[in-house]
This record gives sequence, structure tokens and C-alpha cells, in this order.
Amino acid sequence: MDAYATSKINKVRVSKRAVYDRETVHATLDDGLVAHVGFEDKDWPMVIPMIYARLGETLYLHGAKAARFAKALGKGVPVCITVTHLDGLVLARSAFHSSVNYRSVVVHGMAHTVTDKKEKILALTEVTDRIAPGRWDEAREMNDKELKSTGVIAVPIEHAAAKVRTGGPIDDDEDYELPIWGGVVPVRQVFDAPEDDGRLVEGVKVPESINRALRRSAG
Amino acid sequence: MDAYATSKINKVRVSKRAVYDRETVHATLDDGLVAHVGFEDKDWPMVIPMIYARLGETLYLHGAKAARFAKALGKGVPVCITVTHLDGLVLARSAFHSSVNYRSVVVHGMAHTVTDKKEKILALTEVTDRIAPGRWDEAREMNDKELKSTGVIAVPIEHAAAKVRTGGPIDDDEDYELPIWGGVVPVRQVFDAPEDDGRLVEGVKVPESINRALRRSAG
Repeated sequence: MDAYATSKINKVRVSKRAVYDRETVHATLDDGLVAHVGFEDKDWPMVIPMIYARLGETLYLHGAKAARFAKALGKGVPVCITVTHLDGLVLARSAFHSSVNYRSVVVHGMAHTVTDKKEKILALTEVTDRIAPGRWDEAREMNDKELKSTGVIAVPIEHAAAKVRTGGPIDDDEDYELPIWGGVVPVRQVFDAPEDDGRLVEGVKVPESINRALRRSAG
Repeated sequence: MDAYATSKINKVRVSKRAVYDRETVHATLDDGLVAHVGFEDKDWPMVIPMIYARLGETLYLHGAKAARFAKALGKGVPVCITVTHLDGLVLARSAFHSSVNYRSVVVHGMAHTVTDKKEKILALTEVTDRIAPGRWDEAREMNDKELKSTGVIAVPIEHAAAKVRTGGPIDDDEDYELPIWGGVVPVRQVFDAPEDDGRLVEGVKVPESINRALRRSAG
């Protein structure tokens, strides 16, 4: 099995839910839209939600160049990127065993600013297509001024660990005799019908990128 | 307006979407189920998803005592707690102006382990009721052994800032003449019908706590 090496950085202490194989890590990352990016900022930890994309073993983060993250992360600092999917509420018969079903990935690596124009365009294409697959090609082309004012941060994946909880509650044996409900409430993220902004040129229809996004959401 | 003071810790650099009023910060925190908690761990930033609850100006985090967070956070370290709601995909006519609608809150404070039994029970009640309102009273009571093996971390809110983006794309004037779709795909988190674990005592029905959670999700 192709897996990330465990080290003191990514080893999960309570390990029964830990997964290190590359396939699970990649799939969990690729299923998300927002990552939580952690780094140090003026002696405080900072966690910022960001849109992102994965290309091979690199995560790309996107934001305005003037933003805090771009200033802090462009300098080659260690970052932690966490992506979490909440899949269910797990109601056990006891509060103690109640939980949530989820899939999460914690990635560590050194961040750097992307300066190569070709790599930057490739990263922005991926980030845009994460919002709606194929959107980059549908949208008006990015011009040089826009490209210059957009900050792209690359984080090669150095360490990675996934954690997954699935299934129903695991109650104490004697608690199964109690007249208390036990089970799962599934949680999903759904996309609703697109709402145009009322300024469409006549005849413009909902694009294929959105149809793809809706199909992915329904899947 | 009752607001959190801005400082170098919580001041949002690109500030047109920043909100510091207590009402927005509290509402955004109270609307979430999973927080991303950032702290330093062996010279690396670490970001871990956790369930949580707010009581007044304190956030409570919950997890097994043996877990990494409990060991790292119990010592009175600075943490960052971020809660994010993804509300929509914003498709502009240009990739450059494409975005997402979201509400997020970034909280900073010093973490400490809760040792007072009464405070611990109060915090666990709130965390359990966040999963499904009123669940604490429905579930089998927590015993002393369980209480002792459960780690609860308190983080008094020292600094807080919310960021909110709503509405449609803001395109360049000339781009509105292009035959390209512009608008929003709303994104929601939904709860599906509860699935019991097949081990219910005869006659046990879906509890009121789940009905409340489902109504909240539908709301």
C-alpha cells in the first residue's frame, strides 16, 4: 500500500481511526472546497479558511496578495492544512459514546509563494475548477494585471494523516437494554439550484460547469 | 454596538468583509458543529477539527484525554479557533472575481483544562446538546469514570473577528456584456432522516432532540 511515512508530526495519538494511505488522503482532500490553514502569526497560532486545490503532491492556496496569509505564508514558513467533512451525528445511548462521523486530513509542509507564471496559471485553473469543474475555460480569460495581483501559495505535502469515523454508535453492552434511541443522523453538503444575478446577456444558460458541480453534489 | 476590540491579533487585513460585533461572532459560532483548532505542537502549527460549544464568552472543546490536543492544550497555550460556514459558490464572468459566500469567525485565546466538576458537566451538556438539542437529558447519565476520562478544554474569547461574504458576483463593468453566466450556487449543510442502529429496545421512537436538530437543519 502506498502510504505517507508516519513521524512525530503526523502520527495520530489515538490511532484507531488513523489512515496514512495516499489514496484516502488524496480522495479526502479532493472532496473538499474549503481548507483550514494554520500558521504562526506574531507569536499566535492563526487558522484561516481558504479555497484550495491539489495537484499531485502539492496543495495550492489562493487569496488576495494583500491578505494576511499571503504576507505570512510567502516567506517559506511551516503550515498545517486541514480538510474536514462532517458526515453524520452519532447518537449513542450515553452522552459519553456520542460522537460525529467525519473524514479529515491533516497535511504539514513548508509554504512558498508561486512566482512561475505557468505554475500559477495551472494552480488557478485547478482552484477555479474546484468551485465548478470546467469553469476556468468558460470564464473570461485572466489578464496579466489580475494574474499579478493574485497570490498563490504552494505547499508540498511533507506529512499527511487522515482520520475517518463511520458507522453507528458503539455503546456499552448493558446500555443496549435501555429504552434510548441509538443511531446516526446523516449530514451532507448540498448545492441548491443556481441563482443568476439578473444581469445575464439574453440567451445565456446555466453552464456545464455548474451542472457538473450539481451532479457531484447529488452523487 | 457591542463589539470585540480590534488589535494586531484579530484585525482583518483586507477588511471590507470584516465584522467585530459580538452578535455576529456569537451567531456564527453557535451555528457550527465543527471548529478547526490551531496550536503549536513540536515547532509545527497543528489544526485539528473538534466539536465545541460556546457558553457566554468561553468556548469549550471536547475530546479524549489521551489525544494530542488535550496534552498540548491543557498547559495554558495560545490557540486559534476558527468556525466556517460555506454558503455558496460565486461564479463571476471572470475567474478573477469568482469566489465563495461564507461566514467565518476566528477566535484567539489561552486554552486551559477544565478541572472543576460542575463546569465540566455544564460544558459537556452544551457540547452534547449542540449535536442534538436536549440530548444530554435523554441519554444515559455520565458516570464518574467517564467524566474523569473525558478531556474538556476551555478557551476564554480574548480576540474575535468574523468575516462574511454574501450576494452575487461583482464583475468588471465591461464583463457584463459577455455571454457568460454569472450568479450563485447556494450551498447548505443538511441532515437526512435518522437511521437507527438496529438494536433499539422495542417501541423506542426517534427522540425529540433529533426532531429539533432536523428542524434546525431545515430552517
